[in-house]
Amino acid sequence: MKTSALQQARAAYQPKLPKALQGAVKVQEGAPTQSVDNQEEIKALFPNTYGMPLVEFVPGETENAKQMNVGIILSGGQAPGGHNVISGLFDQVKKLNPNNKLYGFLMGPGGLVDHDYVEITEELLKDYRNTGGFDLIGSGRTKLEKEEQFEKGLEIIRQLNINAIVIIGGDDSNTNACVLAEYYAAKNYGVQVIGCPKTIDGDLKNSQIETSFGFDTATKTYSEVIGNIERDCNSARKYWHFIKLMGRSASHIALECALQTQPNICLISEEIEAKDQTLNDIIENIAEVVAYRASQGNNFGVVLIPEGLVEFIPAIGRLIQELNDLLAAHGADYADLDKDAQRAYILAHLTEENRATFETLPEGVSRQLSLDRDPHGNVQVSLIETEKLISDMVGAKLARWKKEGKYNGKFSALHHFFGYEGRCAAPSNFDADYCYALGTSAALLIASGKTGYMAIVKNTTARTDEWKAGGVPITMMMNMERRNGEMKPVIRKALVELDGKPFKAFVAQRDQWAKETCYVYPGPIQYWGPAEVCDQPTKTLELEQEK
Amino acid sequence: MKTSALQQARAAYQPKLPKALQGAVKVQEGAPTQSVDNQEEIKALFPNTYGMPLVEFVPGETENAKQMNVGIILSGGQAPGGHNVISGLFDQVKKLNPNNKLYGFLMGPGGLVDHDYVEITEELLKDYRNTGGFDLIGSGRTKLEKEEQFEKGLEIIRQLNINAIVIIGGDDSNTNACVLAEYYAAKNYGVQVIGCPKTIDGDLKNSQIETSFGFDTATKTYSEVIGNIERDCNSARKYWHFIKLMGRSASHIALECALQTQPNICLISEEIEAKDQTLNDIIENIAEVVAYRASQGNNFGVVLIPEGLVEFIPAIGRLIQELNDLLAAHGADYADLDKDAQRAYILAHLTEENRATFETLPEGVSRQLSLDRDPHGNVQVSLIETEKLISDMVGAKLARWKKEGKYNGKFSALHHFFGYEGRCAAPSNFDADYCYALGTSAALLIASGKTGYMAIVKNTTARTDEWKAGGVPITMMMNMERRNGEMKPVIRKALVELDGKPFKAFVAQRDQWAKETCYVYPGPIQYWGPAEVCDQPTKTLELEQEK
Repeated sequence: MKTSALQQARAAYQPKLPKALQGAVKVQEGAPTQSVDNQEEIKALFPNTYGMPLVEFVPGETENAKQMNVGIILSGGQAPGGHNVISGLFDQVKKLNPNNKLYGFLMGPGGLVDHDYVEITEELLKDYRNTGGFDLIGSGRTKLEKEEQFEKGLEIIRQLNINAIVIIGGDDSNTNACVLAEYYAAKNYGVQVIGCPKTIDGDLKNSQIETSFGFDTATKTYSEVIGNIERDCNSARKYWHFIKLMGRSASHIALECALQTQPNICLISEEIEAKDQTLNDIIENIAEVVAYRASQGNNFGVVLIPEGLVEFIPAIGRLIQELNDLLAAHGADYADLDKDAQRAYILAHLTEENRATFETLPEGVSRQLSLDRDPHGNVQVSLIETEKLISDMVGAKLARWKKEGKYNGKFSALHHFFGYEGRCAAPSNFDADYCYALGTSAALLIASGKTGYMAIVKNTTARTDEWKAGGVPITMMMNMERRNGEMKPVIRKALVELDGKPFKAFVAQRDQWAKETCYVYPGPIQYWGPAEVCDQPTKTLELEQEK
Repeated sequence: MKTSALQQARAAYQPKLPKALQGAVKVQEGAPTQSVDNQEEIKALFPNTYGMPLVEFVPGETENAKQMNVGIILSGGQAPGGHNVISGLFDQVKKLNPNNKLYGFLMGPGGLVDHDYVEITEELLKDYRNTGGFDLIGSGRTKLEKEEQFEKGLEIIRQLNINAIVIIGGDDSNTNACVLAEYYAAKNYGVQVIGCPKTIDGDLKNSQIETSFGFDTATKTYSEVIGNIERDCNSARKYWHFIKLMGRSASHIALECALQTQPNICLISEEIEAKDQTLNDIIENIAEVVAYRASQGNNFGVVLIPEGLVEFIPAIGRLIQELNDLLAAHGADYADLDKDAQRAYILAHLTEENRATFETLPEGVSRQLSLDRDPHGNVQVSLIETEKLISDMVGAKLARWKKEGKYNGKFSALHHFFGYEGRCAAPSNFDADYCYALGTSAALLIASGKTGYMAIVKNTTARTDEWKAGGVPITMMMNMERRNGEMKPVIRKALVELDGKPFKAFVAQRDQWAKETCYVYPGPIQYWGPAEVCDQPTKTLELEQEK
């Protein structure tokens, strides 16, 4: 396998561990916990894994030489640092007892059900330490939710004499990890399940989880290229760059990148929803900034747009909801119509408010909403090129303003979408250390007999050796939410809080960023060099943890 | 001005200079030179600047304390390192005599004509050392070609008591620099003109110019994100990524990125032209790789596409040529037709061969070719989303093969275009040093009384202190070429040589890369850390300079 100079040099990096994890540990348990809401329902659903205490590892005296085999699963989208969770887990599992084995289930949770696995050895692992990607064992989106899957998984668990499964995933995967933990506990199978907080989206965080892994590296990678585009923009002085950023549910990525790069405009979906803004409101706000800058001779700028924007615009959200219902009910006869007839059909059937919204959309978008549907008949919002939709509408509005004499600039737009560029970047020092500590904690939670816990590492804006590691009962983070028409226990997703410090810091500066040109150029992630360059946490984490 | 931690740390970097430039220098002149072709014509056009010797700077004994003021111009697209050329020039100009002044003309060559300038001082420059972008003084695309521009420029040159103008640009800008040098020499104005080889495209190189600045940083930045996408691709195992890379004329960027990242497929325009391949040939080749990989269970891959591809496909090049001529002749009556009538008009007027080509194109592309035209009536090839065109056509071919039972995989495509992400990246150590040496050389060429020269630095795969600096008469690199219907003296553009070592190294490996998965992940540019990570030249340069 040919590798790059950076891959070779990075392979030698030894992640730093919190002091408490460097030697023998003992478990310090807190008081029993409660779920964040709907305590009675959650307790009833998780009788065996509810109410357990928070756990912190502190220096102990005797090594736990526990014999155990462990299986690991990567679930969902890639995030930088996954291989380091595996490395930390592997090293600690072997440190506890060199005869212990670590098995990796292939291509996600499906690997457990289908009995596809590989034994992870040092020989296999060594080329993957401190690397991005999930390619060591692959990932997948199969959801573990059915008893027959749990039972099928148990067969291979028994065959390999596995004591515990570690599931690395986002909020849904960790919810499912807890359901699995509860099931195995209820059946007294003696199989533990431990989760690990992964997602570049940054929306798996709460009082116990300071950040999900991958967010640091991904946002730094996006900020690098956004900063480069800003510098180009400020040199050429003739383009408006509309940059869409991955992150369907929450706008943490866009907000973090804005705090790092200070673009002229950054849309935050949660704010748009809270203010009940229409698409036209958004367009008007952007066009006003473009017009103001043009009046200053600055016909250029940078706009950041979160991928999930469209669904957060309340009027469009309602339209999509009605379209989904309408076409689910009448899909068959609708499908046979030609394009124009389909459009007429939709216009004839929508309620007045949603028809008005539908008619304000550019033709390409309304066609996409009426034509392209996923296998469940739902609108494929992710196919909408929001960055082009917005810039086209801004361009149209500016053209009108020009006729009215309200605007006299030039508007030339370029478009970008960043997502795949950052999900598999080589982990930053932060993510490399954070993930290695998470993996180490996961192994120690298993050795301590815990199940239904997620591995956590806290105090992460301090020096690495001062980080605190432990576990949180997954039920503690749950509440009941409606999903596909049913109330389900789920880990509450963390959206951008409009009264949180990161958003407030952004609001305090954004008017200046819009009018002036305040671009900051973060440059590429550095692994060696001055600590202030290599070891800074995200702005989000820094502001949230600010004392 | 708020700056990032990297910007602050990088500001302190002192670029390394070749030993010969570190102290006093003297000029070592070679034999008289000849242009690469059309010697008689070039000599007749450049009587005052033709035939001058190559120049190398070697250690000297006495400092040249020459009093001189210098003007600098950035011309054309941004390239990483422009600010370092200015820094090197500034430092050497001041070193020669602290009273010397450096003026920057604003927003490109237009700044000279319009008398827009700023004096560059240490106070102004210090925040721009080792940074990307051209935002210190801006750049522009005004062409300096007319006597009235030269005379208008002379006014401000006289007013500021400027002895020499340095023009940082690509092949066209350096050609124009030479025309300006010749003009001022012919008029005995006593104003020198020096060029500097800039372009991320890498197509300004020859026996004297080893590489143009910016190519190193830009290709490393693109390779970083391509590598990240490859890793994602190899983890998710379900997408084909079609990545278009900036570079209209030559495929050096695509080739260099392929050598760094080992994608499954990389198209090289020059090869396609040489083999007289059709669009269908290209599609078929790609579809065959997709089908082969699918047969191995690998429904994923990465394809690199040079931006200029479409114009290099001979059949399409001929079609575009005829369309341009046709619509230039009949533009007025054509413009009033509706879309369908325009298409019919074109089909009725094209020659048979070109009509056949036109009809094979997907509707969106043929519409783009027939509708969107630049102010000169030419087809706007840069608007064609080549990456989508190719993947759509590959998808269509695979769907046919599926019906015929020749293919049984899944084909899901994602698209990227990288260009603006790299043009203004912070310069790598290589570009930071190379540009600083170029600027230093430019100052020394001026102090030596030279005009019509380009600053050069050679032996660039050796350690920086062994680099050789000097100048090359611009006429030496010229030949006569047809431009807009007229024969003009121009610097010969360097396309990818099909018998050159970089292309041959690619050809020797590409079949393996297509069938297997041989991705290499270069990671982000590093400024500190192991030399093998931080200081490696491009693969292209390494292979070309290989002894």
